[in-house]
Amino acid sequence: MKIEAVDFFYLSMPEVTTDADGSQDALLVRVRAGGHIGWGECEASPLVSIAAFVCPMSHGACRPVGASVLGAPLNEPADIARIAAQVAYDSMDLLQAPHTLSGVETAMWDLLGKAKGEPVYRLLGYAKSHKKTPYASQLFGETPSETLAAARNARAKGFRAAKFGWGPYGRGAVARDADHLAAAREGLGPDGILLVDAGQIWGEDVEAAAQRLPALEAAKAVWLEEPFHASALEAYGALAARSKQVRMAGGEGAHNISMARHLIDYGRVGFIQIDCGRIGGIGPAKAVADYAVGRGVTFVNHTFTSHLALSASLQPYAGLADHRICEYPFAPRALAWDLSVNHILPDSAGEIALPEAPGLGIEIDKAKLQSYLVPVTIEVKGKELYRSPVLD
Amino acid sequence: MKIEAVDFFYLSMPEVTTDADGSQDALLVRVRAGGHIGWGECEASPLVSIAAFVCPMSHGACRPVGASVLGAPLNEPADIARIAAQVAYDSMDLLQAPHTLSGVETAMWDLLGKAKGEPVYRLLGYAKSHKKTPYASQLFGETPSETLAAARNARAKGFRAAKFGWGPYGRGAVARDADHLAAAREGLGPDGILLVDAGQIWGEDVEAAAQRLPALEAAKAVWLEEPFHASALEAYGALAARSKQVRMAGGEGAHNISMARHLIDYGRVGFIQIDCGRIGGIGPAKAVADYAVGRGVTFVNHTFTSHLALSASLQPYAGLADHRICEYPFAPRALAWDLSVNHILPDSAGEIALPEAPGLGIEIDKAKLQSYLVPVTIEVKGKELYRSPVLD
Repeated sequence: MKIEAVDFFYLSMPEVTTDADGSQDALLVRVRAGGHIGWGECEASPLVSIAAFVCPMSHGACRPVGASVLGAPLNEPADIARIAAQVAYDSMDLLQAPHTLSGVETAMWDLLGKAKGEPVYRLLGYAKSHKKTPYASQLFGETPSETLAAARNARAKGFRAAKFGWGPYGRGAVARDADHLAAAREGLGPDGILLVDAGQIWGEDVEAAAQRLPALEAAKAVWLEEPFHASALEAYGALAARSKQVRMAGGEGAHNISMARHLIDYGRVGFIQIDCGRIGGIGPAKAVADYAVGRGVTFVNHTFTSHLALSASLQPYAGLADHRICEYPFAPRALAWDLSVNHILPDSAGEIALPEAPGLGIEIDKAKLQSYLVPVTIEVKGKELYRSPVLD
Repeated sequence: MKIEAVDFFYLSMPEVTTDADGSQDALLVRVRAGGHIGWGECEASPLVSIAAFVCPMSHGACRPVGASVLGAPLNEPADIARIAAQVAYDSMDLLQAPHTLSGVETAMWDLLGKAKGEPVYRLLGYAKSHKKTPYASQLFGETPSETLAAARNARAKGFRAAKFGWGPYGRGAVARDADHLAAAREGLGPDGILLVDAGQIWGEDVEAAAQRLPALEAAKAVWLEEPFHASALEAYGALAARSKQVRMAGGEGAHNISMARHLIDYGRVGFIQIDCGRIGGIGPAKAVADYAVGRGVTFVNHTFTSHLALSASLQPYAGLADHRICEYPFAPRALAWDLSVNHILPDSAGEIALPEAPGLGIEIDKAKLQSYLVPVTIEVKGKELYRSPVLD
């Protein structure tokens, strides 16, 4: 098989707000080869990611992503790795390239799984997919009582684990942050798994973050996620050294394997969170999972959007029985839910399992998506480089 | 003053080849504030960088670069740093953001320098600009005799230092690479400064790179640049530990201060090469220069394009008398030369000095650039987000 076509579908809610909620738009990718179709999704900024696929070449080390993908042979997992290496080398000066490739690479795995009649995790070398414990990923409330209500709501909906992030956390008084954590713990109950996401609020300020450690430990938070800029490895390492029980988590900002490795080795995170829609797709995420196992670090998916992205993000660690926690889009915008016909739902024990169908096992809901399509045209030198394709 | 307008001009040679020559296109940026105009340049992929400025917001952490720039106050250098921090935080999910900001940030320094009647290096805190020794940056010849001729040519044109990179180097036999180095040394003469750029050819393969060390030492190369992927810190560190005299160089791939710092601390480079058109502009480059001084590492500019980019890239270390070597676009395409009316030329001793005029001291040649303009339109949801502006 050769890659015959790659189509990008820019989807958006009618209104996009400044909420730290990545489910407000999506870039859906369709790859065609040998009569098969695969689907993938890029995280965030659809217009820029499309531009990185179609842009004119600037020079030998700054070629459009499309140049390494279109027409390339696709028969085995090794072909996907080869294409990814080509993109990394020929597009090294194109910062957006890993982001664009993420959706394309994911679609290639989906396609290859369908062509071979295997779920993706099996193509990755796992014999079996283990169930995961999903956590409800939510924003902190504006007040502790709102946070309390959100935690109770997650528990009422069958989630034993919940993550709270962004909102007012880290922006005001240390005591106020502690109130939010106490509220979250109260709402989840003593056996709930409490996770906290600081959303990079402290930049590189280790002291500001360290002031929050006592309350995090008192509330028995399992991890503190992204206290700092994604690249602030020294700050991560310094805070990890000062924490007794709470472990650091991070990695969603990793857009290559090296960045994730450095967060483990230099940043000393206990949980490495990989977004398949950012790191370059499923292949690099699997490489990080392998590396994490060797270092005693727990792999976690990062997913805030659709169930296509959720399925993709679970494949890289599906076979790791001890890496149990998984992020689950708890309250996504309608677009993220409407993207697929089928969904990955918690069972009666509150656990989730990957589809056993070939590929990613997620069927795209083309009918429902029509109303979310964003028409885009990009014209360079009088030539149309991109026009939104028909989703049929 | 407030930033009233930011205009992007996409310029290109009529034909762009796969040569590793970044001077084949350019993204020129014009910023207007308080009746003043500043100019900057983004490195590579104009279309993608434009898209990152004008793209619709995806969510709170993925806003277009323009949202943090347009209308922002600009009166002091601290304002530029504040705008850059805003972009980093509000566009953290937009990989191309640092690239786009680079040209805008550079233009802000140019504008502020003109408004205050000071060269940029003085706004950065340097009392004086020291002369630099430019090296002729060239590609290896296809054969050692071509490399010999190129080295002789550089010397004949008054360059004591020359860098050879890319081409066949690292792709074939170790002995063939040694022949190229011997030829380069012969052409430069015994007192020439010889620099070598491997263009990431060995990925993360430390052994492959280490096999080239004896020939590099025999030819008295001062540095080996980018033997590995920009993010392969471990490989850089391992090779540095095995080299006796040749020091490692890298950093052009750094698109934030942290990445440059990690290359110094974990990658153990002896020379940190910063491209103002990639790292986010002049401010972050100055921060890296300060850090390098503290670590005993030598700062070098990375510039392969216009004299506007050259002036910008020299400002961050203009005041560091001991950091003498500088990259100089030796044989750029016509576009890069035609971009400015005035140029930074070597004096009779073969050294170059920054203009003492306000700002970057480079005048844009609008008349000559007309024929290089690439018309672009980007339309989203029926609304024109970008149309190439008139350069007048």
